[in-house]
Amino acid sequence: MKKLLAAALLLTSTASAETVATGDMGVVIERATGSVLLVDQSERAALARIEGFGDLSHASLVYSPDERFAYIFGRDGGLTKLDITTRQIVNRVMQSGNAIGGAISDDGKLVAVSNYEPGGVRVFDADTLELVLDIPTGGKTIGLVDAPGRRFVFTVWDTGETWIADLTEAEPQITRIPDMGDRPYDALITANGRTYITGLFGEDGMTALDLWDENPEPIRVLPNYGRGQEEMPVYKMPHLEGWALTGTEFVLPAVGHHEVLWVDADTLEETARTKTHGQPVFAMARPDGRQVWVNFAHPLNDTIQVIDSVSKEIIHQFQPGPAVLHMEFTPRGHEVWLSVRDAGKIMVYDTRTFEKLREIDAESPSGIFFTARAHRTGL
Amino acid sequence: MKKLLAAALLLTSTASAETVATGDMGVVIERATGSVLLVDQSERAALARIEGFGDLSHASLVYSPDERFAYIFGRDGGLTKLDITTRQIVNRVMQSGNAIGGAISDDGKLVAVSNYEPGGVRVFDADTLELVLDIPTGGKTIGLVDAPGRRFVFTVWDTGETWIADLTEAEPQITRIPDMGDRPYDALITANGRTYITGLFGEDGMTALDLWDENPEPIRVLPNYGRGQEEMPVYKMPHLEGWALTGTEFVLPAVGHHEVLWVDADTLEETARTKTHGQPVFAMARPDGRQVWVNFAHPLNDTIQVIDSVSKEIIHQFQPGPAVLHMEFTPRGHEVWLSVRDAGKIMVYDTRTFEKLREIDAESPSGIFFTARAHRTGL
Repeated sequence: MKKLLAAALLLTSTASAETVATGDMGVVIERATGSVLLVDQSERAALARIEGFGDLSHASLVYSPDERFAYIFGRDGGLTKLDITTRQIVNRVMQSGNAIGGAISDDGKLVAVSNYEPGGVRVFDADTLELVLDIPTGGKTIGLVDAPGRRFVFTVWDTGETWIADLTEAEPQITRIPDMGDRPYDALITANGRTYITGLFGEDGMTALDLWDENPEPIRVLPNYGRGQEEMPVYKMPHLEGWALTGTEFVLPAVGHHEVLWVDADTLEETARTKTHGQPVFAMARPDGRQVWVNFAHPLNDTIQVIDSVSKEIIHQFQPGPAVLHMEFTPRGHEVWLSVRDAGKIMVYDTRTFEKLREIDAESPSGIFFTARAHRTGL
Repeated sequence: MKKLLAAALLLTSTASAETVATGDMGVVIERATGSVLLVDQSERAALARIEGFGDLSHASLVYSPDERFAYIFGRDGGLTKLDITTRQIVNRVMQSGNAIGGAISDDGKLVAVSNYEPGGVRVFDADTLELVLDIPTGGKTIGLVDAPGRRFVFTVWDTGETWIADLTEAEPQITRIPDMGDRPYDALITANGRTYITGLFGEDGMTALDLWDENPEPIRVLPNYGRGQEEMPVYKMPHLEGWALTGTEFVLPAVGHHEVLWVDADTLEETARTKTHGQPVFAMARPDGRQVWVNFAHPLNDTIQVIDSVSKEIIHQFQPGPAVLHMEFTPRGHEVWLSVRDAGKIMVYDTRTFEKLREIDAESPSGIFFTARAHRTGL
């Protein structure tokens, strides 16, 4: 892609069409400026900055199956469709007052957004961004994920219910599962789309659902573990999307403790704990599962620790710089990109030698999203 | 991508550059004519036929990380580099007299080919196809796969050795592991790059290696299972690359029996068997692992059975047509494409309803390879 890189400098913010293969690209959120950076993994380089995405202070995105379009979910309720081949915004709607993430159906036809204000989930045509379906839930809606079979799964903070919306037929089928727990604040789905797990703010432990079950029922996980009676501010709650699966175990950032927990993926029982440098925010497995990379909450957020998933011991620790907010592995795991917000840099590392390979300038970078996510469930 | 499809009819076999996102494309081998068909998953359509690949009677391919180039390994030793954005062959070398498959390193820089004649493995620069490294092995070389950390793993039929070639440094590091068994005929690596398993022609059972071990040693798997004393022709040996992982179990086509075997991925011990319509050739898990699709050896190769991976029972059976040779799931598993060689068709099915969605004309289609493979280990 050397030729593309050279061309990029000329093409930035024009609509010219080049032959572009997008499989090794990515989009980085620039949280302070409402812009994103289009990046190239193979060249370890930024290709273009695109502006006009609104409030990206807590933003995420998903990709179309052809890895051409990114759907960016802004904090302000903005849903923006970016064409990464032409590097232009092709559509943008303000779909709510305050949004908290989104998902794309397995067939790539529907984009769903979960909202704090006015709550509920709204589903849009991925092609036109026209509203297809409005699902009021009676509360702030979190933990929205896609599941196989054109389904979306999400959870209501206020009522402690998880909803499964099956959109395969003209008439949507909604299944409501009560008693997921007190004030679920986030959720994840495993990569195979089978297990949905919610973290709880109001009580200890977590709650899982087996989506392969005909009638999924809440399963309590680590019921004696969690925030306990400590009054911890919500911004320290770890990101559940960062939960890692290494072979037959999950790794999860402990809530309010300086450790990560290892949980058997089958039995959902705790198998081990590893002491860490600080309160973990993300614990992310390298795609082969051999390493788990952990970043930490303020004020220890200048540090990364790497854990070996066999010995469960820390094998490497380093300080990339101030405010390491996010990590993204190349799809086959040979490199990792880190957002170092207060250094204004993305840093690229070799995951085998831990050598720093490149620094890329970015404006307050946060989430890094590589296009390979298009082919995965629940990302 | 509707516009692209219309444009495709005009663009075929020209070098015109269109804006092309390649994440939902694929290449289908046309085994009788030395040609390939470029296909679009979202449109369920053929975009172009490209010719000039030599003998494709037992061909496979891998993709560059950007999903722009396909490297096609022909039976005649031809290694051909296809640019799927311009739809043209950009390079082709005859690298041996008789080849049996290839792999691409995790960083996308090296393409390796394993050879029957003269044997050994040859490694090429993915950019130029220049020979980088010749690894004579003293025999027919099979089961070549890529492993994390710029490694290739392969096995020698004649000597029963597995070799691990680590190409991270200027000087390649080769580790030879003897005693893998009598005449290994094929091998696979699990999706996480940890376990390498060879099938044996000369004795019962299989042999596994734990590549995470500092000094991997042969582990016997199902030592009392295999072809036994029956004299079965080699062409009925099942394809090991079709082994499927569903949650915590492998599914493998039994050798010479009308059944598939379920094996615990951790202990490598047999957990169950499912009786099937015929001798299975491929047993492939839908990406979420909930279903396993099985095709069969001649003369029962007009039939597909679908097995539920929880109940391990056959939930669907149908006859797509004569000689179903290969299956490929869309990356998130909502559809599956089948090559029906003697019908001259590719058939596309919904994996939930089992409804046939489309037939696409093709000349004796065999292997179907979607571009999402670029992001996976060992495919």
